[in-house]
Amino acid sequence: MRKTTNISKNVIRRLPRYLRKLDELSAAGTERISSGELGAQMGLTPSQIRQDFSCFGEFGQQGYGYKVKELRAEIAQILGMDRSYSVILIGAGRIGQSLIENFNFSRYGFSLLGAFEIRKELVGTQIAGVTIADAETQGDFIRENDVDIAILSINRDHAQMVADELIGLGIKAIWNFTDAEIDPGDSGVLIENIHFSDSLLALSYYLSEKDR
Amino acid sequence: MRKTTNISKNVIRRLPRYLRKLDELSAAGTERISSGELGAQMGLTPSQIRQDFSCFGEFGQQGYGYKVKELRAEIAQILGMDRSYSVILIGAGRIGQSLIENFNFSRYGFSLLGAFEIRKELVGTQIAGVTIADAETQGDFIRENDVDIAILSINRDHAQMVADELIGLGIKAIWNFTDAEIDPGDSGVLIENIHFSDSLLALSYYLSEKDR
Repeated sequence: MRKTTNISKNVIRRLPRYLRKLDELSAAGTERISSGELGAQMGLTPSQIRQDFSCFGEFGQQGYGYKVKELRAEIAQILGMDRSYSVILIGAGRIGQSLIENFNFSRYGFSLLGAFEIRKELVGTQIAGVTIADAETQGDFIRENDVDIAILSINRDHAQMVADELIGLGIKAIWNFTDAEIDPGDSGVLIENIHFSDSLLALSYYLSEKDR
Repeated sequence: MRKTTNISKNVIRRLPRYLRKLDELSAAGTERISSGELGAQMGLTPSQIRQDFSCFGEFGQQGYGYKVKELRAEIAQILGMDRSYSVILIGAGRIGQSLIENFNFSRYGFSLLGAFEIRKELVGTQIAGVTIADAETQGDFIRENDVDIAILSINRDHAQMVADELIGLGIKAIWNFTDAEIDPGDSGVLIENIHFSDSLLALSYYLSEKDR
């Protein structure tokens, strides 16, 4: 019986970190781990870890610890990694190409169905086995395929316009790499932003705190 | 008199968002804004906004609202944007090139001093006016220049090894684009991670919540 109501945003944001750590432990052959040891490795208190996991029900045993593989499978399911969400890439510039080449979509349970680009000189080129298609064909592609998530890695000036098109075509979520704020209107479409500047400015804050 | 103690991590993480919104308002010619209006535009409650800003002292006036330019300048200073931190890029692959080309370092108060790459075929090429230098020269460069932050955008397999070198050379902070967890040891060096997968998995979580 899983309790999935009222999970705080902070817990959700920590789950992928747990997943990465559990993958690391699994790769190193660790089969079970106590909340104390897991906390020490992640810079969290054992009680924080127990509290995080308690949101979803119980998977640890007192005095025994967590089974790494079971806990990993549970977190993966909570994160929707068993849903096989389909993804397309809108904009195959440097960032887009880097995602195709380096981001392991299938490892996280996603399938990358296609990549689209407006610049004709990039259309037809291959990156890691993915052929870049003409942006003019993306509308038809979305209509004909069941696409859940669009990665938006285009020029920020066109971000809202293209997002509006994608939303109109029935996309459920946008993973936004443009620096623009996307307004989904009343569509209910989810927007998740990668704002590089937010991350660097947080670093800058902590650095300036040390210098004070 | 600024109060900068005990600022929660969540407030720090929200400040760059305020900065972006204030830049947007400024560009649109808005000179002042109430906490109610700012909240409406950002999906926050007025009291949350007042509470966030109260951490740093007072800049709003009851019944008058915030002066956009003054508030922006104050947040920029809190974030260390007036410190002119120097940055070098370690690894000029697709992600690194994209940062050189698209990330407006100077706008956020940073100066990009150089970019280094191990692959000889990329050495000497120019991206947006920056000449990619040989990774073999990066040690000397760091010794001879005052470098605050290193952007790490190399293969994850070498991430810790290269991070250890950079830390040994006196770098103060690492902006980590590799998927590897960097351990700064007891150096006190700050590590800020861009984990693409954390962001996509959070999106996946919210999407699967809707589907349940």
